Amino acid sequence: MIKLYYAADTCSLASHIALEDAAADYSTVRISFATGEQRKPEYLAINPKGRVPALVTDKGVLTETPAILVFIAQSFPKVRLAPLDDAFLFAQVQAFNSYLCSTLHVAHAHRMRGYRWADDPSAIAAMQRKVPESVAACYQLIEENTLREPWVMGETYTICDPYLFTMAQWLEQDGVDPSRFPKVMAHRRRMSERRQVQKAIAEELA
Amino acid sequence: MIKLYYAADTCSLASHIALEDAAADYSTVRISFATGEQRKPEYLAINPKGRVPALVTDKGVLTETPAILVFIAQSFPKVRLAPLDDAFLFAQVQAFNSYLCSTLHVAHAHRMRGYRWADDPSAIAAMQRKVPESVAACYQLIEENTLREPWVMGETYTICDPYLFTMAQWLEQDGVDPSRFPKVMAHRRRMSERRQVQKAIAEELA
Repeated sequence: MIKLYYAADTCSLASHIALEDAAADYSTVRISFATGEQRKPEYLAINPKGRVPALVTDKGVLTETPAILVFIAQSFPKVRLAPLDDAFLFAQVQAFNSYLCSTLHVAHAHRMRGYRWADDPSAIAAMQRKVPESVAACYQLIEENTLREPWVMGETYTICDPYLFTMAQWLEQDGVDPSRFPKVMAHRRRMSERRQVQKAIAEELA
Repeated sequence: MIKLYYAADTCSLASHIALEDAAADYSTVRISFATGEQRKPEYLAINPKGRVPALVTDKGVLTETPAILVFIAQSFPKVRLAPLDDAFLFAQVQAFNSYLCSTLHVAHAHRMRGYRWADDPSAIAAMQRKVPESVAACYQLIEENTLREPWVMGETYTICDPYLFTMAQWLEQDGVDPSRFPKVMAHRRRMSERRQVQKAIAEELA
């Protein structure tokens, strides 16, 4: 059975929602960032990166949200969480998710995890000050160029949707004015009404 | 015909090599970062992100290296640049490439592009000082945990290989001691001996 290692209020929520979307038979294990559990030997033996998510499958452990999301889509093809038979559409899905992991999530991470990229406390503070601007720039691109409606890819729900929803949880904390991005916010509301999303969040908060 | 927009000494080299690996019929357009061509309206009409690579296909434009690499693998399936029929192995390929774009490339980018994440010049300088450490930490994980031999995924060459090779071009410039990472360096040498790699680099330098 698939097992998802997650931490509350992190990007692992995207994989958690996708497992619900797929109606997968899975279990979860919560990792506490507050106690530094992700850096302890027990967890490093599962994921040497010391990050979440990690998905334990019968063939081994998988990491990295974009990879896990596609794995879920491919493992449960009947649910059609990605356009697996169309290389161009699939690449659009992948490009969206790649942008989230490499640009939006990275911009966001400079608020809480600046120590990854500088040691000087004043530099870390300078990074935090820029987050509202750099995160908003990402949402502007998404709002204007990539987000179709009702779902990211248009009429069809895909693995882009739980990932964007997960990132958009942090929008206000990142100092971004939500009123600037009505499509992103409408997407977030639409997602929050889904039973699968509610179930995943409820479990992580329990 | 496929058209690749690239810039010299950037991550677009990975897609360029993969097109050579696939023996694709393609053309290239060089974008000059020195003259800020990536920020001019003509290029923003192709890629609103103002980044490279961008791949123009007969169905539209694709961006983001991990997405483009998979698109090339799927478009030229006979060349077998990715394990397209095995969801777990494919997820491993994706996880590797996702790590490169979201962690290694991001660590590297703090040397030249710190302005993305802070305005204060002293903060940008502090980011630059940390690059040797943060980039080396990525290579340590790759060296110890993910890089098999002779290719990233073991016996079979995949789209992970041109991407790692492209990143590894910057290792010395990032202040990382190459002798710490013999497997990464052996991989770089192995790649540099490939005709397809030589051809892509020669064209970018021409």
